[in-house]
Amino acid sequence: MTTTEFQVTGMTCGHCEMSVREEVGEVPGVEGIEVSHETGRLVVSGPEAIDETAVLAAVEEAGYEASRVG
Amino acid sequence: MTTTEFQVTGMTCGHCEMSVREEVGEVPGVEGIEVSHETGRLVVSGPEAIDETAVLAAVEEAGYEASRVG
Repeated sequence: MTTTEFQVTGMTCGHCEMSVREEVGEVPGVEGIEVSHETGRLVVSGPEAIDETAVLAAVEEAGYEASRVG
Repeated sequence: MTTTEFQVTGMTCGHCEMSVREEVGEVPGVEGIEVSHETGRLVVSGPEAIDETAVLAAVEEAGYEASRVG
């Protein structure tokens, strides 16, 4: 199991979290998603390393900006 | 055509507007809805007077608080 952390800007409410969750959930290999509009933190997990670029693109598709953390 | 104005608190983004729009759109007689998360203003219109209580309940159902304006 690997986890990758991102910082997302622009989420203001639970609806925004859901939008991010929906898009990021479509990225191959993603099995777990934690996301908070309060902290902006997005933690993605899966059995193998996840394509960061695909996650960043998914967040952008949802209408927000993300960057890799750590 | 009548219009009725409400002030809604708690909307933070376009998703919130959509939630309000969906619920208020189900109130009988409502044909037009203008809603802004930036101002909190909700303007409901229709051919006849609209049941304010039903609009207030619809906004609450969406997860926000509203009050009649004007």
